[in-house]
Amino acid sequence: MPTPLTVVGIGNAIVDVISHAEDAFITQHKLNKGTMTLIDSDQARALYSKMGPGIEMSGGSAANTIAGLATLGGQCGFIGKVCDDELGDVFRHDITAVGVKYATPPLNEDPPTARCLIVVTPDAQRTMHTYLGASVELGPDDIDADIIGGAQITYLEGYLWDRPKAKEAFRTAATIARESGRKVALTLSDVFCVERHRDSFRELIDGHVDILFGNEDEMRALYQTETLEDAFSAVRGECGIVAITRSERGSLIMEGPTLYEVPAAPVDRIVDTTGAGDLYAAGFLHGLTRGKHLAECGRLGSLAAAEVLTHYGARPECDLNEWIAARSA
Amino acid sequence: MPTPLTVVGIGNAIVDVISHAEDAFITQHKLNKGTMTLIDSDQARALYSKMGPGIEMSGGSAANTIAGLATLGGQCGFIGKVCDDELGDVFRHDITAVGVKYATPPLNEDPPTARCLIVVTPDAQRTMHTYLGASVELGPDDIDADIIGGAQITYLEGYLWDRPKAKEAFRTAATIARESGRKVALTLSDVFCVERHRDSFRELIDGHVDILFGNEDEMRALYQTETLEDAFSAVRGECGIVAITRSERGSLIMEGPTLYEVPAAPVDRIVDTTGAGDLYAAGFLHGLTRGKHLAECGRLGSLAAAEVLTHYGARPECDLNEWIAARSA
Repeated sequence: MPTPLTVVGIGNAIVDVISHAEDAFITQHKLNKGTMTLIDSDQARALYSKMGPGIEMSGGSAANTIAGLATLGGQCGFIGKVCDDELGDVFRHDITAVGVKYATPPLNEDPPTARCLIVVTPDAQRTMHTYLGASVELGPDDIDADIIGGAQITYLEGYLWDRPKAKEAFRTAATIARESGRKVALTLSDVFCVERHRDSFRELIDGHVDILFGNEDEMRALYQTETLEDAFSAVRGECGIVAITRSERGSLIMEGPTLYEVPAAPVDRIVDTTGAGDLYAAGFLHGLTRGKHLAECGRLGSLAAAEVLTHYGARPECDLNEWIAARSA
Repeated sequence: MPTPLTVVGIGNAIVDVISHAEDAFITQHKLNKGTMTLIDSDQARALYSKMGPGIEMSGGSAANTIAGLATLGGQCGFIGKVCDDELGDVFRHDITAVGVKYATPPLNEDPPTARCLIVVTPDAQRTMHTYLGASVELGPDDIDADIIGGAQITYLEGYLWDRPKAKEAFRTAATIARESGRKVALTLSDVFCVERHRDSFRELIDGHVDILFGNEDEMRALYQTETLEDAFSAVRGECGIVAITRSERGSLIMEGPTLYEVPAAPVDRIVDTTGAGDLYAAGFLHGLTRGKHLAECGRLGSLAAAEVLTHYGARPECDLNEWIAARSA
C-alpha cells in the first residue's frame, strides 16, 4: 500500500509566461493591475503578441503550494489537468521533479495546456491573465478517492470554482476528505474570484473548510465588510483556522477567539510577488502537518513566501529547508 | 523598400530549459561540464526526466546575440528554423518582441522545435545538451539574398556546421554577403564543435570571415597550438578582426599587428554563465556597426556579457542601454 500523503492539492495546472513591463504597459492595455483576469485563447494570443520576451515556468496556485511543500520534504500529491502537449510536459516534469505524486491523465486533444500571462511591473506587482485551456476539463472522475481519503489535508484553490465541471470535482474531493475524517483547506485566490463566487464560497466555508487562506481584500470582499476584523467576526465559528496574508505587514492567524500576528520575513529586494501567497500556504501547511504551533506555521509561511519574492516565478529556486534554516538561527 | 539591417544572424533556433544542480549531478550522469553536447530526442527525454524543475527561455547562440543587439537599438534580423509548435511560438514571440525581423517559415511537422537542456552548477558554469530538432532543417532556401545582401554584417554560429544542410545555408549566406561587399562574422561556439569541424572552419576563416569570435580554448583547438599567442599568429592575415573572450580576465582583440586588452566588467554575483559569450558579441558588434574604436567595442561587449551573468538565461532581462549607461559614468 502506498504511503499516505500529507497534503493533496487540487487546482489549475498552468504554465506561467512571465514578462516585465513599465506601468505604462498596464495603463495602455487597460489591464487590472495586481489581479487575475480570465481570458480566452484569442485574447491570450492578442495579449502575448504585445508582451515583451518572456520566461516560462510552471505555475498554478495550488500547484505552487504543493511544489513548495514537496521541496520542504512533504509527501504530496497534485490533481489538475494538462493537455498532452509541450507545455503539459513542462508542467508534469517540474512538479514530479520535486517529488510530487501527479497522476491525473492528460487530455489527448484540444484545448491545450493552460497558460497564465504575467506582467511584472517595476514595483514587483504581477498582473495575471489566464487562459484556462485544458485545466477546466478536470472533473469528478479525476478525483482519486483513495488519495484524498488518505491525505491529512486536501488543499483547494478558489480559481477552480470558475468552471462547473471543476467545481464539481472540487466538491467531490471536499466531501471525500470530510467523510474520511480529513481536513479541507481552501485558498480564496483572488478578489474578483471571490466576487464571482461569494455565495457558494460562503456556503462551502460554513462547516466544510477547516483551514482558510486569503488576503485582506479577499476576506473583506467575501463577507462584504469594511474591516478585516468584521470579516473575522463573520467567519469565526464557521472555520477552524483562518490565515490572512498582509504583504509587508506579515500575516494574521485566527483560531476561534485567538489571533496571532506574524511579521513578514525581511527581503533585500522584492523582484516579483507572483506566488508569494501560494508559498505562504506551503510554509504554513508544512508546519501544520508537523504539529507546529500556529505562530510557528505563520513564521514558516513568511519565510517560504520571502524566497519566491526574490526572483521571477512562483516556484522556489533553492532548497527551501536551507533557506529557512539560514534565517532561523 | 525596407530599411537595410545592421546585423543578420543565422543560427539554431532553440528554447533553453535551465535547471540547477549540484556538481554531483554532473558526475553521476557523466556530463561534460561547461561544454555543449548534441543529443537525440530519446537522450533528451532521458536527461530531462532526471533534471530538476526548469525554466524555459528562448536561446540559441546567434539568436541571443541578435536579441541583445536589438535591445541595444540595432535593426537586426534572424534566420533559423523552428517547428510550428508551442516552443516554436515561444521562440518567435521572444525574438520578435525585441524588434528582430524574423521571417523563416516554420516546419509544419516533426521534428519539434530544438531545445537545449542546461544544468547550471553552483559555480555558475552551464553544461548544455542540445536536441537540434527542427533547427537542422534550415537550408539554403531559407537564406534571403536581399536581407543578407543589405545587412552590414552577417553573423554565423559555428554550431550550424553540425548538419550538412545548415552548413550549406551557412556557406550560401557567407557567399552572398561577401559578394555584396558586406562583412561576415563567425563565432566558434564550442571547443568540441571546433574539434568536429576544424578543417572546414579554417578553410572558411581564411579569406571569408572578417570578424571572428571565440574563447581561448576554441582558438587553441582551432589552430592546434599550445598558446593563444600562437593561435593569433596563425590567424593573423587570414581574418581582419579576432575577439577572444577570457572569462573574468576580459577579452583580447586582434586587428592585424595590434592587440587590445579589455578588462571584464565587474559583477556582484555570477549566477549563470549561459550566453555570456553571445552577449559579448552583441555589445561588440553594436559598437562596430556604430563605427566605435575596437577597444570601445570590447568594453561594450564586456558590459553586455556582465548583464546576462547576473541571472539565469541568455537573454538580457533589462534595458541594455540603461545597464551600459549606468556603468559608463
